[in-house]
Amino acid sequence: MVVAFQGERGAFGELAAVEYFGRKVRPLPVPEFADVFKAVEKQKAAYGIIPIENSQAGSIHHNYDLLLENRLFIAGEILLRVSHYLIANPGVSRRSIRRIYSHPQALVQCRRYLRRFPNIETIPVSNTASGVRLIRDHGLRDAAAIASMQAMIDYDMKCLAKRIEDNPNNMTRFLILAGRPARKKSGRRPMKTSIVFSTKDIPGALFKALSVFALRDINLFKIESRPVHGKGFEYLFYLDLEGESYAEAQRNAIQHLQEITSFYRMLGSYPAGRLAHPEYRRRR
Amino acid sequence: MVVAFQGERGAFGELAAVEYFGRKVRPLPVPEFADVFKAVEKQKAAYGIIPIENSQAGSIHHNYDLLLENRLFIAGEILLRVSHYLIANPGVSRRSIRRIYSHPQALVQCRRYLRRFPNIETIPVSNTASGVRLIRDHGLRDAAAIASMQAMIDYDMKCLAKRIEDNPNNMTRFLILAGRPARKKSGRRPMKTSIVFSTKDIPGALFKALSVFALRDINLFKIESRPVHGKGFEYLFYLDLEGESYAEAQRNAIQHLQEITSFYRMLGSYPAGRLAHPEYRRRR
Repeated sequence: MVVAFQGERGAFGELAAVEYFGRKVRPLPVPEFADVFKAVEKQKAAYGIIPIENSQAGSIHHNYDLLLENRLFIAGEILLRVSHYLIANPGVSRRSIRRIYSHPQALVQCRRYLRRFPNIETIPVSNTASGVRLIRDHGLRDAAAIASMQAMIDYDMKCLAKRIEDNPNNMTRFLILAGRPARKKSGRRPMKTSIVFSTKDIPGALFKALSVFALRDINLFKIESRPVHGKGFEYLFYLDLEGESYAEAQRNAIQHLQEITSFYRMLGSYPAGRLAHPEYRRRR
Repeated sequence: MVVAFQGERGAFGELAAVEYFGRKVRPLPVPEFADVFKAVEKQKAAYGIIPIENSQAGSIHHNYDLLLENRLFIAGEILLRVSHYLIANPGVSRRSIRRIYSHPQALVQCRRYLRRFPNIETIPVSNTASGVRLIRDHGLRDAAAIASMQAMIDYDMKCLAKRIEDNPNNMTRFLILAGRPARKKSGRRPMKTSIVFSTKDIPGALFKALSVFALRDINLFKIESRPVHGKGFEYLFYLDLEGESYAEAQRNAIQHLQEITSFYRMLGSYPAGRLAHPEYRRRR
């Protein structure tokens, strides 16, 4: 089974795909998040996987926008324990490092660690694993990368420091994308539903929108606001709620919600994700 | 009057400071947003100015985090009409451009325009005006920068394309920061209040928090959620509401709110911002 992820070998997206689908998965690396959506739409991959929020750095807003721009459904989620390593070419010592390459999100997740080295320049790259490949391919002796232990193993590199994330409980939530909505609940995990809407321009609109769930004792897990493009300061709301959209209370709440929204879309119902600690392995 | 902003001459933060305080202002450029807060705390500047959200790219989350990490107050706001220019060294033509430097937010705001040039590499820099200075200082003939018309004038550069932002109504909201809360309402503009809180772990907590305002017909302008650091997926909520915190309804609502929050802080009451179209001028 082919699953598209952004980045390259050793990227956290690949690790999350292996944890979610198991070792039988065939991860398909693509350069941009938009390409993950395209790969699923064009049926080059059965599923796509994208990060949507990190417990420290917050939401990945570009991916919220892509959920709306594309027509895929959320079919699942997984919480990945994300641990960062400071990685360099073999023989390089920590004192010779002048630059550190990594994804901006990873740099944020290691902000406290990086403050110890005010004279080291941090350089953003499109993916954590790409940073490792860059310093390996160019044989850089004065640069390091921040990435997963898997990227270190895959590129035969040296570890200068391990578990350098600020938060010892650092987690990233990944969404599984599919071309069609998931079937009704089958497993034993509780279900979640994700929707997006914008409210009519009426007083207390957001409060009224949330009341349709509160009235039915449906818990909300997350609310995220994003600007409506081209509309000045108007907002779209992404909501994660308890239960599946087929259930009676949820169906009624969503019907009720649509009386006060000017835009509404269902993004999917799916089993609530488990927390996975990635296993690292030597491969090839 | 000294006002600290992040970036350098011609940055949008400087333009916003001039529009808010008038020509008498003495803008103080600092390298990072955290330095804007520091400059006000150490009384090197009377005020600071930071962007907080853009009508297309959304919220600047790092600045929300800094509001919480520091002890300053929001004393005002201004909405700046932000127009982007493609800027190069004199004599350089559009066809010779291979790289474009700009701030990641500006690159997002010009995403549609940039799609026309799939073979041009975009390179993030810490501020739009820094990108202009970089291509000027190195005399780059194959690179351009995206920045304000003011940066183009200040660095004596050439315009390759004007108003290239995707949204013809592109706006950025800036906050004015001060060491102490603003005094009670004086001018004629309506007032706004910004607060931040996290809810107790009880069902319908966010709904209950919003209800304290809805019950008193207090309009909400914006809600923004950010993860609580070190806490997995728990959230802080930043709320902008109508009116000033001294008014009776607001005071009661906030007192009521604190019964259901585990954390609460007032960020400030201030006059709602006007929309300003920056004036450009030749200086020196």
